Order: sequence, then structure tokens, then C-alpha cells
Amino acid sequence: MEHKVTFLPDNISVTVAPGENLLAAAALAGIYIQASCGGDGVCRKCKVDLVEGKIRSSNSDSLTSREIEEGVRLACVSTIIEDVTVQIPDVVQADGKSLKSKPKTTRTISTESLESLVGTWKVQPPVRKLFLSLPKPALDDNIPDMQRLIRGISQTVPGTLEPDYDHPELVRELSPILREGDWEVTVILLQGKQENEPERIIAVEPGDTTDNLYGLAIDLGTTTFGGVLIDLNNGKIIAETSVYNSQIGYGEDVISRIIYSQRTGGLKALQEKAVYSINSIIEKVCREVVISPSDISYIMGAGNTIMAHLLLGIDPKYIREAPYVPSVSQFPLTKAAALGIMAHPSVRLFLYPCISSYVGGDIVAGVHACQMHESEEISLFIDIGTNGEIVVGNREWMVTAACSAGPAFEGGGIKYGMRASSGAIENFHIHKKTLDPMIVTVGNTNPRGICGSGLIAIVPELVEAGVIDQRGKFTQNTKHPRIRTGSDGWEYVIAWSHDTLIGEDIVITEIDLDNLIRAKGALFAGYQTLLDSVGIGFDGLDRVILAGNFGSHIDLERAISIGLLPDMDRERFFYLGNGSMLGCRISLTDHRRFRQRVEVRQLMTNLELSDNVNFMNYYMAALFLPHTDMSLFPSVSSDCCETKFNRRL
Amino acid sequence: MEHKVTFLPDNISVTVAPGENLLAAAALAGIYIQASCGGDGVCRKCKVDLVEGKIRSSNSDSLTSREIEEGVRLACVSTIIEDVTVQIPDVVQADGKSLKSKPKTTRTISTESLESLVGTWKVQPPVRKLFLSLPKPALDDNIPDMQRLIRGISQTVPGTLEPDYDHPELVRELSPILREGDWEVTVILLQGKQENEPERIIAVEPGDTTDNLYGLAIDLGTTTFGGVLIDLNNGKIIAETSVYNSQIGYGEDVISRIIYSQRTGGLKALQEKAVYSINSIIEKVCREVVISPSDISYIMGAGNTIMAHLLLGIDPKYIREAPYVPSVSQFPLTKAAALGIMAHPSVRLFLYPCISSYVGGDIVAGVHACQMHESEEISLFIDIGTNGEIVVGNREWMVTAACSAGPAFEGGGIKYGMRASSGAIENFHIHKKTLDPMIVTVGNTNPRGICGSGLIAIVPELVEAGVIDQRGKFTQNTKHPRIRTGSDGWEYVIAWSHDTLIGEDIVITEIDLDNLIRAKGALFAGYQTLLDSVGIGFDGLDRVILAGNFGSHIDLERAISIGLLPDMDRERFFYLGNGSMLGCRISLTDHRRFRQRVEVRQLMTNLELSDNVNFMNYYMAALFLPHTDMSLFPSVSSDCCETKFNRRL
Repeated sequence: MEHKVTFLPDNISVTVAPGENLLAAAALAGIYIQASCGGDGVCRKCKVDLVEGKIRSSNSDSLTSREIEEGVRLACVSTIIEDVTVQIPDVVQADGKSLKSKPKTTRTISTESLESLVGTWKVQPPVRKLFLSLPKPALDDNIPDMQRLIRGISQTVPGTLEPDYDHPELVRELSPILREGDWEVTVILLQGKQENEPERIIAVEPGDTTDNLYGLAIDLGTTTFGGVLIDLNNGKIIAETSVYNSQIGYGEDVISRIIYSQRTGGLKALQEKAVYSINSIIEKVCREVVISPSDISYIMGAGNTIMAHLLLGIDPKYIREAPYVPSVSQFPLTKAAALGIMAHPSVRLFLYPCISSYVGGDIVAGVHACQMHESEEISLFIDIGTNGEIVVGNREWMVTAACSAGPAFEGGGIKYGMRASSGAIENFHIHKKTLDPMIVTVGNTNPRGICGSGLIAIVPELVEAGVIDQRGKFTQNTKHPRIRTGSDGWEYVIAWSHDTLIGEDIVITEIDLDNLIRAKGALFAGYQTLLDSVGIGFDGLDRVILAGNFGSHIDLERAISIGLLPDMDRERFFYLGNGSMLGCRISLTDHRRFRQRVEVRQLMTNLELSDNVNFMNYYMAALFLPHTDMSLFPSVSSDCCETKFNRRL
Repeated sequence: MEHKVTFLPDNISVTVAPGENLLAAAALAGIYIQASCGGDGVCRKCKVDLVEGKIRSSNSDSLTSREIEEGVRLACVSTIIEDVTVQIPDVVQADGKSLKSKPKTTRTISTESLESLVGTWKVQPPVRKLFLSLPKPALDDNIPDMQRLIRGISQTVPGTLEPDYDHPELVRELSPILREGDWEVTVILLQGKQENEPERIIAVEPGDTTDNLYGLAIDLGTTTFGGVLIDLNNGKIIAETSVYNSQIGYGEDVISRIIYSQRTGGLKALQEKAVYSINSIIEKVCREVVISPSDISYIMGAGNTIMAHLLLGIDPKYIREAPYVPSVSQFPLTKAAALGIMAHPSVRLFLYPCISSYVGGDIVAGVHACQMHESEEISLFIDIGTNGEIVVGNREWMVTAACSAGPAFEGGGIKYGMRASSGAIENFHIHKKTLDPMIVTVGNTNPRGICGSGLIAIVPELVEAGVIDQRGKFTQNTKHPRIRTGSDGWEYVIAWSHDTLIGEDIVITEIDLDNLIRAKGALFAGYQTLLDSVGIGFDGLDRVILAGNFGSHIDLERAISIGLLPDMDRERFFYLGNGSMLGCRISLTDHRRFRQRVEVRQLMTNLELSDNVNFMNYYMAALFLPHTDMSLFPSVSSDCCETKFNRRL
């Protein structure tokens, strides 16, 4: 159920989820409301008038009781609980012009479109349990215990079968377990990697334990590990958690981890930290639903190439040195317990294969999840993080590349950059006359810094307001207290220190802008180089799929307006979310789809951009907002920015 | 090359290998020579006259120089080095009658007949090495190291391929090894268990090591472990050794080992001892041919069910308790190093599958070696040890059983019983008038005791001489210093104490005879029960295959005359030798034949004799020499024994 929020006087409406903050809803609608404290109701600038419907407000002591009676509300502390209409006061809606334009934001995350991407999947996991009541041995039927077990299974289910010969404990434990269970036992069967391979008996438990069959999907991020526990009897998620990747103490990014791994004991320490983090996930989800870690029968994970190498204890040394070669792309199906993971010795840890040093299993999992390998449509798959990984293709071919975009979108290289956690400025408007900001923060608290989506909002707004030009340089033709020179040169003050949680002015500097432009330039040059390599242009693309945490929160219009995303029909953009985790979840639940991962990997060809002349040329041309070749951005140049942009070119 | 030895005056010839002892040759020919000291030339009773040819004699100071000049020789210290003719002196050949009968021994071990059994095999081992010179990685060719390796192999040899995912060290070591070898490496490939399975890369070594590819075949006996090192590049045996099974300190036989395994730490201790014995073999063969244990790329072994369980650390507890169930029949293809075996971590230890608790992998290996599963002919396969294991069948069906024959043929339960080592009486004749013995010992030394083949010689000789009857009881109707009562009742003195190495009279007692009759009775009842179960009689058998150390040295005529073997055309008997080792050797060398082991195992059905009423009846009827039903032994009853046997019935 969603609620409609209508803003008067211009009668602009947006639909939001229940509980959405009114200030965030206004920002989403492209409505400017003066709001510089981020949202604890103290600056009292974001007053609106409630015309129809109810709003839940906290911190109402910032208003007089008369104001409240008259319907005045502070947008930043107001929560949408039903359809409402609010009037933006004159003082706030000064810049009438922008209100009349269409909303500058486009975020059409619809469940339907996700379903059209990822399709459906069945509950037929790679492991299954079977309860057996075996006849007891007798002198005229004294076949070996294992043979009795296999005979019992074969009488119940068809298909070929063999014991898990790689798990010696199975045969050592079998006889006592059969007798402990008085010949009533539950077997766990593991499907073959390929269709013609026999199923394998990986474990035997006394009694009937068929109700307890769980799988764990893990997203092995450089910063955080996400975990999802799935009941493999019905495919439902029953617990979900995330923990910090404990490796973080040895370096923020993958490169510093590779460097650390070269120290004595470094690789081992990094591996142990990864295992520790996985064990933390297992402990948390198991405690939540009160099961034993030994009830987890399969673990499926995906991570970038370096994370996978480190977890498996494979030296990542050569990944960092030209020509950037990983040791292995298809990772061994490992016994989780052999790595130190808190799991039954029979449990397998599957890691999605990587493609190259910088296109990892997380990307393969994402592509696998959204079924590019099944579709005739040609898709551009984009995952923006420290690196931007790009895939172009369809069911017949795929090319992939990683561009060193830099960590700007994760807050790296940005003076007040931060991740999208509490206090991060995630949305921003600027009053085109007063040049005062409207900021929306994660958690609606006072601001702490700027996250990726905040940056993508700030940059085009500053361009539109004429504060910076298309090269990302301050125009220096406006006198305003918020525009000044600081220790890093020219900057714009987004929040004054008294409105922040950090006690300093939060600013965006010309260096920040430069880093952002380089990052988006690398990505755009990546799209172009990949498309070139297969002989098509942007018009040859049927779909653009945005994956990853950042991609899932990206504002299309703004991202296009700065040249981070190609200027295509907005209907062709799809948000996949955490494709890495989604791929693991699907694979864990549906073995038929799991098997298709092989096709995905085989389709993908890596293109190395680091010495690609084409890429370098495209990159230089893309160091502009949105681009030096404006013909690539028809909707941007025809929009409101046109005159300003053109004027200054 | 063999030599012909002719004995005068009766002109009886035998063919023997160069170096054979003259006394042993005479015994083989059925010639009686008085010889009671076993062979150090001191009793000087075994004098013969050299008529033609030369003989090498040691200890000739026992003879006068005149005797030597006249051609007198002591048979016990004479070695055959060319064709010779010798005259047996009158005093020696007193019992002319026996000389005129056909030799009572039949031992037709011909290499030809062995070849007709086991066929030929090719050199296409389950592991192979391949030298690769790989292109170095470059920016335009920076596929992962493992992919580069696989690509290199695929360009050299056809077929599907995958890395050994169960050996995590492979991927961890790959990158450094590739660089250490400057991209020139040797890979070791392991064939799939079945034809459609991909080959697996199990190890990578820097440089070209293709010349070093070895396999080890091990026969895991209860008493000794035999080892054969094979150069897998040409299939040749390059070293051979045997060691005591170190488990022997925990019990002589498998039952006492099972009992020991139930103590705290017992199973572990027994496993470690088995591993220690294997490591001793590896050390010995590797030192002999100066290779490193890590050059051994495959280990293939066979042993009885208990030995296999103990080696793999699987509790054998239930094997001993009715209904006699082993934990597993097909043993996991184990990493040898994981058990503690001195081998490269990639090396697999294959153990032949067992059929039941008392029909083990040694039997399956033997049946596999002699290709019963490929032949239309119906064979009776017999391996006589502590247990007698029997298999009947052909390429369409096989039944198998183990009979608790008892250890008589290994010297167990016999007062002066011993294994066939130095000093063991292995052949025996008795002078029908003087009742004095002719003994031949292993190593031609003074006697220490009696081994299995000695027993099989002694019993029919005593029957023929009328010393004992067909129930194995002393007839007590002859007065002779060698026939007397001792602490165990009636006994016959085979060697007086002054002629032995143990300083005691060596005797055979009525209790010994009883144990022997029980042992042979159990075996014969086993043959009958198995044949009954498939609805054929002895006349339905095309071949009898004798396996095992004892079977390979058995004297057919005598074994038949006491009812240990069925009375069939002697031409239908074949000696296989150590079938367990032979099976391992063939499998190690020829992977195509190795794969057929699956058929062998699937054909074999176990019959449990312990509660079989049929078996018990047959057993009772077989407690007689040769049998209560003389129609089963036509050639025995029509022979020299007829009158004597019938007289006493």
C-alpha cells in the first residue's frame, strides 16, 4: 500500500511508501523546501501547511500550539501515514519555475520490473533430505551398511547415487548413526554439478530431520558481508543480517588487502578474518531462528575476485601486478569446515566464479540473477562501486570490463564523503535564487557527510544554479557566503557547522568535483569501449540494468544529467538491487537455475581497459558534465539546463 | 630355461628350474629317498649316484673322496645346474612299487596358462603426465592462471578436463609453480572413475618431469604387506618388496585386531600401524630405485575387508557380530596423505571394494585379474588362507562365500605348524615299509616345523602307509618308534630332535589331523554349497583357479587325495599366484581394465554360510579323507589308495 502526497500550489504528486518522511517526499517530487539542518526540527525552516489528511509529527514542540492548530508542520519531522495534500508557503516556493517543470528525479523501482528481469524460480535446492526406514540386517540380508542405505534411497527416489567419497567421515560415522537411529535415518543428498552426474549422499542423521534443511547465501563485500538464511523446504528467507568484513582492519580496499597479504602470515590472517565474518553471520542468523549451524546444509557465496581468493587462502599477488592475472576463476567447491567455517563437515561452500582480476563472482551472480544469458534483448549491466564493473550482452554473447572508477560514489576521495549510513546527505536541492540548500539525510538526522547519491544530486543542482560550470569548476561569478575558498580551493557550504553532527561546515570542493567527474568519466568511457568492441552504440541497447547498493538508490535523471548513465529512454532502466546476493539466493533455492551459472561464465569475455587506447580517448572526452559530446545527451541538453549549459560552453 | 632330472632305475623324469635342490626334485617326482634331517648333509642318508651330467654340491666333506670320485652325492646338498641322470641306490629305493606308479604330484605352473587367464594389458595408467610450454600472460591475454593451464592442456590433448576441486592446494600452489617453471610445467592428470567423466588435473610441477611417473601396488595382507613399484611410462615392475604388517603386535588374525580396535585408541593405533607398514614399503622401493616418494602418483591396494576398514579408520565392530555387516563395501578413493601415507597430497589411494565381511578386496582383485567376469567358462576361484574364500561364476553371474576354514594351512592349530618360511617342512614322503620319512624343507635347512604344503603331503602319505585311517585317527596296528603317544595323544615323529633346529622332536598329532580335516572339510562343503546355490555340480565347472600364496604352491594330487580340492581333470586347474597383487598391478597399469572392476563387483553375490543348513550337512560329510562320498573322488579311489582306503572303511 502506498500513499499519494500532493504539493500545492503546483499540484504535483508523488507516491511514497507508508512512513516516508515528508521532506524526502518533497525532494523526490522535485519540490524545493528550505531545509538545512537535515531533519531534527530545530531550524524550523521547513514549514508546510497541511491541507488534507493526517501526518504523524515528532518534535512538535518546535512549533507553537497555534501553528499546529492552523495545520503548520515541519516537513523534516513529518511522516506520511495516509494520502495527504500540503501547501508549500510562499517563502519556500519562491522559485516557482522549477516547480512547473517535471520532477527531476526518476526512481521507478517496481517489483514487477524486477520480476521481469529475474523471472521465477522453484524450490528444488542443490541439497535435499530424505527420511528412510531401513530393514534391519539379518543373516540372509547382510549387505554392507552403505549398500543398505543406497538400496533404501534407490527404492524411494529414482536416479543414480553415490556416497560422497570426498568426505571420509561419512563412512566412518555411518554404522553408528544407523544403529543410533534404529535404522530410521535422514540422508542429505547433494545434486551433481551437471545433470548427468549422480546425486551424492553427503550426510546421514539419526531419526527424521527432514524439517530442518537450510541454506545460507552470503554476499562477500569488501566492506560488509551480507547473509540470508533460507528454509530450503519452502525457499523462504527466514533470517537476514549483515556484518562488517573483519578484514577491514587490514585495509579499506582490495588493493591494500593484497598488499597486506604479502606480509608474513598476512594471507592467513586475512583468510581467518573472512571466515570469522562468515561465522558471525552464521551465529546471528542461527540464533535468530533458533537452529543449529549444523542444520545449514549448503552455503553459496559471491564476492569480488580478491575476496574469493582471500577466503580460500589463494595468494592474490598477481592480481595487482600487470597483466593482472588471478590464480583461478572457477573456485573449488570447498568443504566449508575445512576453511574453519562453523558448519557440518559435509557442507559445501560454493563461490560464484570470477571472470578476471577485477570482474568477480558478484558480477557473475548478478548477471546470472537477471538472466541476461537467457534473453534476446541486449543489456548493459552496471555495478558501481570502487570499481565500476560493466557487462554488455545477451544470450549469445557477453563482454565485460572493470573500470577503475575510483571510490567517489562510496564516499572515497570526497572531503566529506561517507557511505550511505545515518547522517549521510542523500538528496539535495538548491534554491536557484537564494542558493540555499534543501538537504535530506539518511535517518533524517543532522548531516555527517555526503554519500554517493547525495553527490549525484549536488553536482547537477550546482551546475543548474550556475555555481559550477560543466568542467566542474566554480564559476566564481556569484558572491554568496556559501561559496568561498577553503584549504582545498573553491568550495560550496552545504551545511553550516551548527546544523551538523560533526561540528564543522560540510562543504563540497573543486577537488571533490574533479574526482567525481573522473569516476563517472571512467564509467562512461567503459560503456563506450565495450559497446565499440561489439560494434553497437547506445541505441543498440534494449535495457540498462543497475546493480549493487549504490545502483539501487541512484536517481536516474540526475545520474544521466552528469553523464554517469547513458541518456536513454528511462523505461529501459531496471534496478536489480544486490545482484550478488540475489544470484546466491536463486542458486541456493533452484538447482536448475544454479546449473545455468556455467553458461553465464562461458558467455562472458573480459576486455582489459587499462592499456586500451580507445578507452583513454573516451575517458578524456567524458571529463565534462555531462559530456563533451552533447549529442550523446539529447534529453539533458533539451531540458532546463540547456540554456545555461549552452551559454557557458 | 629348465633342466630335466631323470631318476634311475625307474627312469622317471621331472623338469625343474635351474638351482633346484635334488632332494626337492626327487620329492616332486614322487621318488622316495631316505632324508630325515631336511638338508645340511650331516645324516648322510640321502646318497644317490650321479650317472650323467654335473651337479653342484655343498658340504661334500660329509662324503669320502672315494665316494665323490665314484659319483656318490648327497641329494639334500645338491643343486641342479644342467640336465642330469641319477641312480637311486638299492637301499633307498626299497619300496619299488611307488616308483612305478605315476608321480603323485602335479604342479603344472605354466606361464602360458597364466596368460590365458589374465590376458594382456596396455600401458594406459589412471594417471598420466603432460609437459606444457605455456605462453606467458600479457595484457591482451590475461586469463586466470588455471584457465591458461587448461587451455594449454586442451590444445595438446582432446577430452574434457577439470581441476581437482577436492585438492585445494592445487589452486593455491598453481601460480607460484607456473612462474617457478617459467611457464614450462608438467601436469599430472587423473582419469575419471567412469568413461564419461572428465580427466582431472591433480598436480602441477615446474619443468619437465614426465620421465618420473610411478605407481605403487600394495597387497594388504593380515601378516605381510607386499609392494610393487611400477614405472607407469612403460608398465614395468622396477622394485618389489614386502614388510610385516606392523599391526601384528595387536593380534595375529583379523578377529583379534577387531577386538583390539574396540579399545580406547585401538582403532587409531591399528590404522597408524597399517600406514606405518605402507610407508616402510614406500621407503624401501624408493630407496632401491632412487626416486622420491612424491614421484609416486597413484597407489592401488587390495586387502581383506577388515584390513581395508582398519586402514581407512572405519570401525570394523559390526563385522564380527552377527549378521556380520561391514560398514562399507566400496571404499572411498582417499587422499593417501590424509591417512598419513608418505605421498604427495594429490595422490589417490584406491582400495579394491569388498563384497562382504569375509570376502574382501583381495578376492575381488583376484577375480578381476583372472577375468572371470569376461569369460563364458564357469570357474571355481579358490583362495585358501585363514578363511577360504570361494567364487563360482562367469561373465553372467558370480556367487561367493567365505568358509571359516581355520588357520591349519597357515600353520595355525597345528602343534608344530608354521608359515612357509625357512625350515618349514614343505614336502614329505614315507617309506611304506620302514615308515621312515623323506623330508624337504624350505631353504633346505634342518626342519623347524611344518607348513601348509607339508601338511598336505604328510596326511595322504600317512594314510597310504596305513599309519592313520581315513578319519585321521591313528590305526594303532603298527609298532614303530616313530608312532607313539605324546601329551596330545597319538602322534607320528617326523623328525627326531637331533635332526631339527628346535631341539625337539617334530611330530604330527591326531589333534593336528583333526584340525586339518575340519579345515579342508569346510572348504569342500563351501564349494558344494555354492555350486548347489547356482544349480550345478563339479561337472559343470570349466576351470578351477587357485589363488593366493598357498594355492600357488599346492600339490594338486595330494590336495585332491585328501579332499581339499575337487577331483577334476588336472588340466582344468590353474594357478593364479597372488591375485590381489596382480589385480592391483593390472589396474595400475591399464585404466581400461581398471574400470572393469565395477562389473566384477556388481556380478558378485555373497552367500552367508554361517547359518546355512546345507553347508553344515556338507561339512559333516566332508570330515573324512578324502570324503565319505567316494563317488566324488573317482581318481582317488581308483588309485593306489583304493584298496587300503576301502579295507579300512
